[in-house]
Amino acid sequence: MLTILPGMDFMELRDLDTPQLILDEERMLNNINKLKGILEKKSVTLRPHLKTCKSLDVAREIKAPGPDASITVSTLKEAEYFFQGGYSDILYAVSITPHKLTRLKKLQDQGATITLILDHLAAAKLINEAATGLGTRFPVLIEIDCDGKRAGLNADDPALVPLGQYIDSSEGLELAGVMTHSGGSYASRDIPEIHETAVKEQKAITTAAARLKEAGLPCPIVSVGSTPTATYGDMYDGVTEVRAGVYVFQDMVMEALDVCDTSDIAISVLATVISHNEQGNRVLIDAGSIALSADPGKPNHLGQKHFGQVCRADTCAPIQNLFVTSMNQEHGLISLKGLDYKFEDFPIGSQLRILPNHACITAAAYDQYQVIDKKGLIQKTYDRCNGW
Amino acid sequence: MLTILPGMDFMELRDLDTPQLILDEERMLNNINKLKGILEKKSVTLRPHLKTCKSLDVAREIKAPGPDASITVSTLKEAEYFFQGGYSDILYAVSITPHKLTRLKKLQDQGATITLILDHLAAAKLINEAATGLGTRFPVLIEIDCDGKRAGLNADDPALVPLGQYIDSSEGLELAGVMTHSGGSYASRDIPEIHETAVKEQKAITTAAARLKEAGLPCPIVSVGSTPTATYGDMYDGVTEVRAGVYVFQDMVMEALDVCDTSDIAISVLATVISHNEQGNRVLIDAGSIALSADPGKPNHLGQKHFGQVCRADTCAPIQNLFVTSMNQEHGLISLKGLDYKFEDFPIGSQLRILPNHACITAAAYDQYQVIDKKGLIQKTYDRCNGW
Repeated sequence: MLTILPGMDFMELRDLDTPQLILDEERMLNNINKLKGILEKKSVTLRPHLKTCKSLDVAREIKAPGPDASITVSTLKEAEYFFQGGYSDILYAVSITPHKLTRLKKLQDQGATITLILDHLAAAKLINEAATGLGTRFPVLIEIDCDGKRAGLNADDPALVPLGQYIDSSEGLELAGVMTHSGGSYASRDIPEIHETAVKEQKAITTAAARLKEAGLPCPIVSVGSTPTATYGDMYDGVTEVRAGVYVFQDMVMEALDVCDTSDIAISVLATVISHNEQGNRVLIDAGSIALSADPGKPNHLGQKHFGQVCRADTCAPIQNLFVTSMNQEHGLISLKGLDYKFEDFPIGSQLRILPNHACITAAAYDQYQVIDKKGLIQKTYDRCNGW
Repeated sequence: MLTILPGMDFMELRDLDTPQLILDEERMLNNINKLKGILEKKSVTLRPHLKTCKSLDVAREIKAPGPDASITVSTLKEAEYFFQGGYSDILYAVSITPHKLTRLKKLQDQGATITLILDHLAAAKLINEAATGLGTRFPVLIEIDCDGKRAGLNADDPALVPLGQYIDSSEGLELAGVMTHSGGSYASRDIPEIHETAVKEQKAITTAAARLKEAGLPCPIVSVGSTPTATYGDMYDGVTEVRAGVYVFQDMVMEALDVCDTSDIAISVLATVISHNEQGNRVLIDAGSIALSADPGKPNHLGQKHFGQVCRADTCAPIQNLFVTSMNQEHGLISLKGLDYKFEDFPIGSQLRILPNHACITAAAYDQYQVIDKKGLIQKTYDRCNGW
């Protein structure tokens, strides 16, 4: 956390050059507390996925650092950064490459517990060999596929038990359990479908855990997670922890899924109107595909593809039916076609805020958050750890 | 330019953690020299757009720094960074906001010539007021729209001459000419269509320049540019300079337009195979939508949407019909469906290189380039100036 400028206590939005990444602290704390409440009621532990925020200041609001504070990361940079910030129980939730173990070993030497994920025997053999070569050992979760969307073994895959046995008997690896990510929940049409997806996620992971246990293998960690299923899941029998990341900020993808409202979305890109293109009937802003990211997200409520919901700068209230409709590297184009707005509604030189499609990807273009308080003042900035 | 590691003369690709941004120096120099040759033959000056490379080391290969070395930028960061590196004639090629003048004034005070672009009277009034308030003056090019794709006034717009007159008579502005960007060339179907687009670009800009001159206004700079039209344009009568940026690296969009071959593409993302997803028939790599960018580019030669051409790591030779087919934040998925490849062709732990859809956006995720030489060795890195 940094104060803004030497000798200044605060800034206002209009003091900032644009584009800038704005973080609404109140919305973020509400999101954090909401999921905390949901998971506490269900008596399941949260292992937050910090790939979204990549910020120690944000992480500390989710969970206090400490030797037992469990977190999830997606890069070596995040692992190093959050360990330096006091988080010692780190799940690296992307299948690892042998080369990356060298940097993780350095964290182990300083006291970190780094848990890996794997879903393939050939990978396990390479990682075992590399870990042994470094004279160390890593706990491993086997990744389970609950929806066919990305990675992992199916819960009923004949390769599961042999993989578990290999890991359990390896010198450089230690079988610590199973994990799955319901990326498929992002394709849900409504909340009942998210409920069903959460049931599938729980079923897949507990089936896999049961198969390992039946084979006499250890399976202390049974980990599931995605923001939609963490928000709407009811069944955590046999599950020991839930991972979720984007819920901290929410975004237009989560809004399209009814996981949040636009008024919950805690990050926005501050932009300035740079011109009115009268022949094309569009407003131009100085936030394009680097500042907003090219992530297409999901169609809006009108079925249109877009690159972010346009909002008033002061309140971050959505301007109805107004979206970033196309982009170039440093230009955002907002079409007024078919809408009841006039150019005068968006004066040149005035600011707008854009709610991003995919918070994790948009935030990755910025080194820091400008943190805005209830009064609309920027009194601090939060750092991010980008890159790998 | 930095040497790699203290005590090490070079690294090999396999020494690098992935993902990494690799820059093939020989390919880059060929691209730079090719356009240089083309434009020298046509006796037109190049004002390179440095938004693609954002690197002084690369800029110096295009044009030596100096008080008369003209360049184009898209952010304040680029303006500051390249000015510090010795480039003093800087075109800021995005309509400016009043707030941004403060940082540009600091560069003027150190001797920079900062030329702005504007396309709207309301913006010109605000910029004039801000410049006057700072006690300074900025040369301005009026942006002309040659294809209806983004910004600018049409060449025959009745607002053009009044805007020119306003700028010419303003205390804080100075009319320096006209500019256009043929973004529409990216939508061309073939080279004859790029030729036509280049003709349209030249016609639009010279028409606009003629109208200003007929009204007794100065128009010393007549600036056009885009990589496709710079490569294939023939007609530069009345044009004083050409801007182009992506040609330095080229990318899969330029390849789809026949502006380059895959063997010309100078940047690639080095990734590692992290798993084989047998039930989904896909290879997983550790480069996802941050490392590759979510830019959809153009469909490949088979008409398929993709996120990059997969290549051998050592030679960067394309692996036929193999593309990154979907992505998550840190996962890239390469579908083998319908292809004659086996998983064994892409062993877990082996490296691949991915040619990006849109070089400017992919490179923006990295702080530096790992520069690879003819022998496949990394002997230096080049910095980039990201952000705003």
